[in-house]
Amino acid sequence: MVSLHAETGYDAWLRYAPIDNAAALQRYSALPAVVVALGDSPEIGAAQEELIRGVRGMLGHTLRVETHLPDESAIVLGTLAAIEEAAPGAHLNGDLKQDGYRLKSMVLRGHPCLVIAGGSGRGVLYGAFALLRRIALQEPASALDERPSAPVRWVNQWDNLDGTIERGYGGRSIFFEDGHVTSDLSRVRDFARLLASIGINGCTINNVNADPRLLTAPYIRELTAVASTFRPWGVRLSIAIDVSSPKTVGGLDTFDPLDPAVAQWWKDKVDELYRAIPDFAGFVVKADSEGRAGPSAYGRTHADAANVIARALSPHRGIVLYRAFVYNHHLDWRNPKNDRARAAYDNFHPLDGQFDDNVIVQIKNGPIDFQVREPVSPLFAALKETNEVIELQITQEYTGQQRHLCFLVPMWKEVLDFDTQVLKTRARVRDIVAGRTFHRPLGGFVGVSNVGRDPTWLGSHLALANLYGFGRLAWDSALTSREIAGEWTRLTFGADPRVNAAIDDMLLRSWRIYEEYTGPLGLGTLTDILGSHYGPGIESAERNGWGQWIRADGKGVGMDRTVSTGTGYIGQYAPPVASTYESLTTCPDDLLLFMHHVPYTYRLHSGQTVIQYIYDSHYAGADAAQGLVPEWQSLRGQVDEQRYAEVLARLEYQAGHARVWRDAVCSWFLRESGIPDAKGRAGHFPNRIEAESMRLDGYQPVDVTPWETASGGKAVECPAPAQTCTASFRYHGAAGWRHLGVEYFDQNNGESRFTVYIGAQMVDQWVADDRLPSRKPDGSSSTRRLITGLALRPGDEIRIVGVPDREERAPLDYLEVY
Amino acid sequence: MVSLHAETGYDAWLRYAPIDNAAALQRYSALPAVVVALGDSPEIGAAQEELIRGVRGMLGHTLRVETHLPDESAIVLGTLAAIEEAAPGAHLNGDLKQDGYRLKSMVLRGHPCLVIAGGSGRGVLYGAFALLRRIALQEPASALDERPSAPVRWVNQWDNLDGTIERGYGGRSIFFEDGHVTSDLSRVRDFARLLASIGINGCTINNVNADPRLLTAPYIRELTAVASTFRPWGVRLSIAIDVSSPKTVGGLDTFDPLDPAVAQWWKDKVDELYRAIPDFAGFVVKADSEGRAGPSAYGRTHADAANVIARALSPHRGIVLYRAFVYNHHLDWRNPKNDRARAAYDNFHPLDGQFDDNVIVQIKNGPIDFQVREPVSPLFAALKETNEVIELQITQEYTGQQRHLCFLVPMWKEVLDFDTQVLKTRARVRDIVAGRTFHRPLGGFVGVSNVGRDPTWLGSHLALANLYGFGRLAWDSALTSREIAGEWTRLTFGADPRVNAAIDDMLLRSWRIYEEYTGPLGLGTLTDILGSHYGPGIESAERNGWGQWIRADGKGVGMDRTVSTGTGYIGQYAPPVASTYESLTTCPDDLLLFMHHVPYTYRLHSGQTVIQYIYDSHYAGADAAQGLVPEWQSLRGQVDEQRYAEVLARLEYQAGHARVWRDAVCSWFLRESGIPDAKGRAGHFPNRIEAESMRLDGYQPVDVTPWETASGGKAVECPAPAQTCTASFRYHGAAGWRHLGVEYFDQNNGESRFTVYIGAQMVDQWVADDRLPSRKPDGSSSTRRLITGLALRPGDEIRIVGVPDREERAPLDYLEVY
Repeated sequence: MVSLHAETGYDAWLRYAPIDNAAALQRYSALPAVVVALGDSPEIGAAQEELIRGVRGMLGHTLRVETHLPDESAIVLGTLAAIEEAAPGAHLNGDLKQDGYRLKSMVLRGHPCLVIAGGSGRGVLYGAFALLRRIALQEPASALDERPSAPVRWVNQWDNLDGTIERGYGGRSIFFEDGHVTSDLSRVRDFARLLASIGINGCTINNVNADPRLLTAPYIRELTAVASTFRPWGVRLSIAIDVSSPKTVGGLDTFDPLDPAVAQWWKDKVDELYRAIPDFAGFVVKADSEGRAGPSAYGRTHADAANVIARALSPHRGIVLYRAFVYNHHLDWRNPKNDRARAAYDNFHPLDGQFDDNVIVQIKNGPIDFQVREPVSPLFAALKETNEVIELQITQEYTGQQRHLCFLVPMWKEVLDFDTQVLKTRARVRDIVAGRTFHRPLGGFVGVSNVGRDPTWLGSHLALANLYGFGRLAWDSALTSREIAGEWTRLTFGADPRVNAAIDDMLLRSWRIYEEYTGPLGLGTLTDILGSHYGPGIESAERNGWGQWIRADGKGVGMDRTVSTGTGYIGQYAPPVASTYESLTTCPDDLLLFMHHVPYTYRLHSGQTVIQYIYDSHYAGADAAQGLVPEWQSLRGQVDEQRYAEVLARLEYQAGHARVWRDAVCSWFLRESGIPDAKGRAGHFPNRIEAESMRLDGYQPVDVTPWETASGGKAVECPAPAQTCTASFRYHGAAGWRHLGVEYFDQNNGESRFTVYIGAQMVDQWVADDRLPSRKPDGSSSTRRLITGLALRPGDEIRIVGVPDREERAPLDYLEVY
Repeated sequence: MVSLHAETGYDAWLRYAPIDNAAALQRYSALPAVVVALGDSPEIGAAQEELIRGVRGMLGHTLRVETHLPDESAIVLGTLAAIEEAAPGAHLNGDLKQDGYRLKSMVLRGHPCLVIAGGSGRGVLYGAFALLRRIALQEPASALDERPSAPVRWVNQWDNLDGTIERGYGGRSIFFEDGHVTSDLSRVRDFARLLASIGINGCTINNVNADPRLLTAPYIRELTAVASTFRPWGVRLSIAIDVSSPKTVGGLDTFDPLDPAVAQWWKDKVDELYRAIPDFAGFVVKADSEGRAGPSAYGRTHADAANVIARALSPHRGIVLYRAFVYNHHLDWRNPKNDRARAAYDNFHPLDGQFDDNVIVQIKNGPIDFQVREPVSPLFAALKETNEVIELQITQEYTGQQRHLCFLVPMWKEVLDFDTQVLKTRARVRDIVAGRTFHRPLGGFVGVSNVGRDPTWLGSHLALANLYGFGRLAWDSALTSREIAGEWTRLTFGADPRVNAAIDDMLLRSWRIYEEYTGPLGLGTLTDILGSHYGPGIESAERNGWGQWIRADGKGVGMDRTVSTGTGYIGQYAPPVASTYESLTTCPDDLLLFMHHVPYTYRLHSGQTVIQYIYDSHYAGADAAQGLVPEWQSLRGQVDEQRYAEVLARLEYQAGHARVWRDAVCSWFLRESGIPDAKGRAGHFPNRIEAESMRLDGYQPVDVTPWETASGGKAVECPAPAQTCTASFRYHGAAGWRHLGVEYFDQNNGESRFTVYIGAQMVDQWVADDRLPSRKPDGSSSTRRLITGLALRPGDEIRIVGVPDREERAPLDYLEVY
């Protein structure tokens, strides 16, 4: 009955693998054999089925289903009210909030029972998942009394109706295909189950850059199927909308929020929606941002735009999440006072108090856009009469796109635990967004999940820790990163302490490692911000209207955001925070270049100069990324083969790509600053042979853009598609066992073939068929092939033969002998 | 570079998995980095590629290829002659026989080298595989000097041109499809590689019930592709032929072996064949057997038939393997002197000395037909002037068809080590077939392999141990069963001592376990001999012309084969052996009923009565089969998931089917003898509820044939295909956690669906979609579904709903509560 199958990752942390620890099995042998569901809400039905499924998987028993309290021990599921009605002596002493639950051992009708009581059906479901999690973690199933940090715990999916996902790295949409809701909703059901297991209660299923067609009648019919699939799992459906809808699909000639016809249109449309989906959750709105329509078209405020929609939703208890991610992307970079980081505060702080009570302003964790390092957004503490949610990005847009390991919970924790110092008492972000600090009725957490059809949901096994971690923090933001990592690792890979220790360590170090090779000292991710947001592209941030400037020149680097001489951004914080950032002596190193412009020779608190720190951190980060490989390899045989192999392949890729990052950033700053690396590494590659310096037969040197993403600024390409090109050189090092690294470019518009020979002997062959986000040789397509264990002798000819395919011209950067 | 993939079984014992034992790695770090192949035979090329592949996989290095002795240490591959020519001081002191090899560390041109010298290219290839095996076993790569037990080491495949395989349990043919040789020969190449790795040097690729078309010109062209694919692996192609070919495809009006036209036809045909395939190995011939044509049609002898073909082959050094499996299958069962076991001896002993020197008589290990227990064929010792090979069956025709674990090496060892006592000195079967005993020029081993397209080749992971063991015994018949099991387990599942110990134990006990529940005291496998040779069918052996009679009646059981009162079969053995078998006091228990007819109350040497032994051994065997399940489960997490799960599923099936066997055999003998089981088990099933005694809704009772293969002789069937039928009963046992066994019939002509409920709760559901060898409810289709961990309460209604499909009418036998 226990199905044994390869671990594809699809079951995520809900694997319910058999427990073979005798002590744990013994502990759970006392679990009642019967499960009784009191009440017939769909969530309680799901809770009961899930308990049966989980106990079956982990303990090998099938719980009996009863509809009334039996004359024996039982697990009793029900709302507080239902339980107290069925067992009048129960005394659960409770006024559980809606989504809260209580797990309690008590005697009912003379039999010891395990009661799972919820404030609502959804609370019961969460209690059931909590019990199963306890069992899976091999912890005692003792009393629990939990309620969530905040009422809004949602995910946003940025799915388009054509089935693509904006910033999705886990395959195509599970919600849409070919312009419609998918007919097979089994993955939607399984996703809702995953969400329920971590307490997520809402899901916005379409891109914030919203397609207005979703509000038309045919699409509303399609959405009802999704809502029905979500319902047993306590997940309420939400969609993102465009404020111009009254005009674009409504037939009006305006979408002015203060126009009564517009208000009436929203009211009618929302009523129509609720007739179809009575538990519809509400809308997410992105307006006046990155080219979207907005109230500015009519000289109205964001509050006007939010409220007209909120008033239509209000009778149905629906809500509006209105995104604060509003900025001018045609900012004049020549004006040193201009600053994109100011935008959210500047736009929304003046409106504080003007939003209706069912509007929530959705604020990204930082003032820019999900960079690897940003300060906390000053807007959180600036809205005292407005509901807030924090928007966190689970999908790793700027943090490696699931190809690099980057466990984001420690980053999120820094933000959530940050004391804004806006009050005399502690005013942490997590308390503000929960509504506690300023006594707001609504608030919470929104995670941009962007799961897709990949068996691993997110495109990588280890990336699922971020989805899990988001849900757990939204439920209980006091949990530590280590607690969350520990839970996830044990649920996902089993209870072996060696496995747990290694994976926890990898997770907990990974954000810092990624930061070290991609974005030093608060500069943000030094990626190609105009394209894929993936590989290095330092200058892409500069001299354009997008405002992610790092202001690097020959003498120094960093944005001066001080009040005294800079953009004044720092003044958006409460005075104690502002004064810390304003002064170079107190500003923390890891935000230094976000807040200040300094010369390269400026010395950090550590005593290092800025430029040497840039070199050192990038070498340290790339080395640490390389070190993740043997750390994972130490688990060979301890982790199932499929996940072992798939994770290993990702880590090996990451180790190679971290070197691309290291070399690009170090080379760029070396050239810009003219200051050499005190340790002699940057710009010096003694074991490297540039492709353009090899003997070329057919291959031709080409310039790579940006120059820093290829070693020496150049690559070689094989110009004619049907041709075979060769690059060769003679090895002059000492004889011995060597590894050979071949750095090539794996574009997504062709599948070149490469073959490596030593003399006449072929030693490796591969096809460049990865789907990296680039159509040209650059820092996103640059990839390392590592050929290990070769016996090299002085005088050996090493030869690479490339066969181009379509637009990919078998491009090569360099070879390196280790 | 090391490909990490699921273990499908396809790589068999040649997995070349990375070695992670530091001591072993250290030991092999001294292996030279260079491999030199001297000479250009295809086998030496294959040896070199295989070494590179294996070292790459296990040690992570790519050996350098050189064509001449380099100025450094090297692994040197070559024939003895080539090595002594290249390095005149080499002194290998050898006259290696053709297939032998020598592994030796020696200094060549001043550098320490590891020399792999062969008597031929094939010997070099075997030496390379021997070195790789040493490494994989983590044993020192020290000196080896090996030559095979015998020159003929072949496998026979019983493949038909339409792609089916007679007695094949591993899928369709790798050689033929749709009446032709397959176009993609990659599996043929990989099979030849497996064969080479264990020293097999010939392969007959078509059914011994031969299709004569293979001798026609178009097919000879197709065969050349197979021969070319075999060639680098030192495997020579052979085909099975029909002696009537001169008439059926040759256009003659006779196939009389003494007709000169027939002789000329064979000569011309063989010449044609050798023009296409110069290294063709020879023919396998089945004649005058089970309906095949033979020399008896013209009053000629088997020697005449063999010699006419042998003389055509002789100039090309080809050989004829002439099968001794000749018997009358219309034998009169009423005559107590008739005995099929006598046939091979009676037919061939008179011809001793009449066969040409390139004819080999191919003798099955026992006198009947690959039963689970038979005495050694008396023919081995009876042919003193005739070449012999022993025919062993790797495919488990009568020993569980790869669905039951049955490691056959211990059985083969008993035969090979058997002293025929025909000489004053020891005259073991293994020495006789090797040609040593009677100084014959040819001899050896033939295994009926019947691999197919299943990823595991044979249809089961653990069954591959039999193919491995056959090859190893053919190479070195002095190896013990434990040595062979140990090697195979380590090569196949890695070096973990816990894994090795458990799997070795399972393998080494498995034949005896299978014997205990299928064929007691030398009765042979008590299977349905007229059909699939799989499930129980005790009476199928009796009262027909096939001569596998067990002579069981109300008073006693067994064939009287004594000289004094029986068929005289025992007189075919040398006097010391014959006298042992003739006397009840010395005849071993495990052959008692093969040699003697005794009453059920006869007492064995152990003191048990025959009837009680039948009961006891069947219960002990079924319990032991059940015990294999937890023994395998103890390896959970130690064995890769796919193989773990697939083996577990097979063992769980076997445990259920062993009970079917137990109950069928015990019930049959209980009814026949009228003597109860002293331990009260046979015929008493206190926890069993017969389907025919349940409350039936739609289901109707039917008689099962043979009666003993269903509990109570009856089943229930759901007569109408579109109908849904229900069988239910009320549980009256004590409350508690229980397992439920549902015994149903899984025919291969439909896929019924079954659902089990306790009260209103569905607890299990499955589709009967296995491909068992039966089209009706019987002992081959009877299957157990085990539903574990159910909380039962007195009064529970247990209900099975069956939905028939096509010819399979959702048949049910019984339920059992554990």
